[in-house]
Amino acid sequence: MADVLEIAINAKAASKEALTLSENIKNLALTKLAEQIEKNSDKIFSANKLDLQQANNLPISMYNRLKLDENKLRDMIQGIKDISLLDNPINKIIWQKQIAQGIVLKKVSCPIGVIAVIFESRPDVITQITSLALKSSNAVILKGGSEALNTNQTIFNIIIDTFNSIENFPKNMVNLLYSRDDIQKLLNADEYIDLIIPRGSNSLVKYIKSNTKIPVLGHADGVCHIYVDEFADLKKAVDIIIDSKCQYPAACNSVETVLIHKSLKDFFKPELEKVLKDNCVSVITNPETWKKEYSDKILSVKIVDNLQEAINHINNYGSGHTDCIITENSDNAEKFMTYVDSAGVYQNISTRFADGFRYGFGAEVGISTNKTHARGPVGLEGLTIYKYKLYGNGDIVDDFIKGNRKFLK
Amino acid sequence: MADVLEIAINAKAASKEALTLSENIKNLALTKLAEQIEKNSDKIFSANKLDLQQANNLPISMYNRLKLDENKLRDMIQGIKDISLLDNPINKIIWQKQIAQGIVLKKVSCPIGVIAVIFESRPDVITQITSLALKSSNAVILKGGSEALNTNQTIFNIIIDTFNSIENFPKNMVNLLYSRDDIQKLLNADEYIDLIIPRGSNSLVKYIKSNTKIPVLGHADGVCHIYVDEFADLKKAVDIIIDSKCQYPAACNSVETVLIHKSLKDFFKPELEKVLKDNCVSVITNPETWKKEYSDKILSVKIVDNLQEAINHINNYGSGHTDCIITENSDNAEKFMTYVDSAGVYQNISTRFADGFRYGFGAEVGISTNKTHARGPVGLEGLTIYKYKLYGNGDIVDDFIKGNRKFLK
Repeated sequence: MADVLEIAINAKAASKEALTLSENIKNLALTKLAEQIEKNSDKIFSANKLDLQQANNLPISMYNRLKLDENKLRDMIQGIKDISLLDNPINKIIWQKQIAQGIVLKKVSCPIGVIAVIFESRPDVITQITSLALKSSNAVILKGGSEALNTNQTIFNIIIDTFNSIENFPKNMVNLLYSRDDIQKLLNADEYIDLIIPRGSNSLVKYIKSNTKIPVLGHADGVCHIYVDEFADLKKAVDIIIDSKCQYPAACNSVETVLIHKSLKDFFKPELEKVLKDNCVSVITNPETWKKEYSDKILSVKIVDNLQEAINHINNYGSGHTDCIITENSDNAEKFMTYVDSAGVYQNISTRFADGFRYGFGAEVGISTNKTHARGPVGLEGLTIYKYKLYGNGDIVDDFIKGNRKFLK
Repeated sequence: MADVLEIAINAKAASKEALTLSENIKNLALTKLAEQIEKNSDKIFSANKLDLQQANNLPISMYNRLKLDENKLRDMIQGIKDISLLDNPINKIIWQKQIAQGIVLKKVSCPIGVIAVIFESRPDVITQITSLALKSSNAVILKGGSEALNTNQTIFNIIIDTFNSIENFPKNMVNLLYSRDDIQKLLNADEYIDLIIPRGSNSLVKYIKSNTKIPVLGHADGVCHIYVDEFADLKKAVDIIIDSKCQYPAACNSVETVLIHKSLKDFFKPELEKVLKDNCVSVITNPETWKKEYSDKILSVKIVDNLQEAINHINNYGSGHTDCIITENSDNAEKFMTYVDSAGVYQNISTRFADGFRYGFGAEVGISTNKTHARGPVGLEGLTIYKYKLYGNGDIVDDFIKGNRKFLK
């Protein structure tokens, strides 16, 4: 196999060729890919079986993510088709204007270049990211977990065969790596890779953020909060807390800490505590856990004096992911939603809604807690940037400096 | 003086307070600042004189950037006023939609948080960046050059006095550092600083990009190209090349390399060569200079076989800043503008137009060659990000998973 730097260089070259990929060719490739994944499903399941047989030491959550079944494969295929139906995000004129007589400026969307995605276990990520990258005309380097080697390689081969069957399709648009040792080499290839998206454990994301000059899109922790305001509808509070904690406790957008206004102490005990117990959620009231992401049916609870203390707590101990206020008081809601410095700020709704599909993006690259480029659930738009096209007719700056010509307002 | 980490922590706190700064208060502060700079101009000139007296060892270009005169001060004051007149970039609803019955999602612009700006010599940068940061509700840490210590301190004191005179104005919104030793401490304060904008030499920018986890917005090199296509109008070619090289050779958007189609060898010699000589521009045809930014009246010239070679040359040796094709053939122009992977791609117009003011942004943070967040000349928008506000009424994800409710298309 080619080494990582060579793969990165080839991916960069592919990304230049991809700059003129037409919408039709991209959608044709995706439609064919969906067909070929379906046609080769037996091969994929066999490979997955092989990986599962060797996965004796995997934690059960990773084993479940690794395991493909008919439902997951159907979702994979549908996901590719859905992305093919989205609007082409490339070559869109974001705006244009005449900056002076005869000079037209256009701000036009374009691909970022080469995206590296580092993920664990889930082989369905390969088709998802490949589809998103192709739709946005980016080349992609996928680094999967070694536990999914056979499944990933089988899916990857189908992708390559499908794309190679299309005339004039750029080579090396999609690349696959397996080895843990390759990660550091990827992180060093800042000359060729434009963006890294880590989709894995907190520690993996933190390691990547600390060890590369390449921009990283993603989130490490998902420490989400729900603040039950003194003006809360307590029925809504219970429903939302249970959904946010129990609907899928391992998700990054599940709630970890509930803050309760001091006037509602009686609501906490016994009412909320009982419902939590009925739902098998254990409660912890220890300040040492305030930065902790449980990813489990465990919940930190803290009584706060007022809205400001809740806001301060969230900004100090949270991860800037998604935080919710339960209140019928719209002034308090707006204050909370303005001062809490998170990607998602919610009123009276479960934190589990923080998701690109639920937001209506049609596809999700991941969830970002960055303060630049893209924040919150990231759709196709997060894989694009823009360039400025300027059309003149022999125009020179000197004429404007000397006052012979003027810019339009 | 407080240490860098303390300043960063205080700036972060200020940035949270700034989240609710009203448009009126921000514009009032800017209007007052413009007044106070004008009122205290004698004090500023005295301080500047002191700096100039101690600046015997400065290169002449730095000396000129350090020196304030009536014109520069007038521009500083006008710059503050101009920024006060721009639209408020914060709290704008970028879009909103109903994602399900009774659930409204709003994408709302907000400040990034704490911006650090590292610059050299030019004391006029202080009021410019302060105004841009305030207008976008960001806290800012300014690191000026020690050669401008007296001027910077004097202007800084005027800013602080002005802002402190406004009731309830957040403390520590603007901070000033002097020492070179402070740079590394700033770069380490990634927990508190959200974006770094270096405005200085190539080596400074490269050092910063290599030594911080904080996102960096800017450009190191400005190696801009002009390609004279076989279908060029040669009169336009001459005018544009001379303007792009000579109008201000030290600017990052001045041209460094001219690529000429082989059919136009006769145009290069003697015609273009003569005009360049008349304008005191020396020509170099040595491949070793193809990555060089001269910032002077020196020009690399290369004869290329065709458009594709020109594109490849620019993508290999350029800096992704601004590149121009001179051609009357619109197919060639579109091919060039699509395949050249630069922030600005031009047809028949001087590269010197790459500038936020000329693009009509009203103010410029700097020029970025990044492939994420902001690219090309960056206006106020580059100092903003967004958050998602989600308004519900007790809604839970479980209802959607179970099929009791549906998302709207």
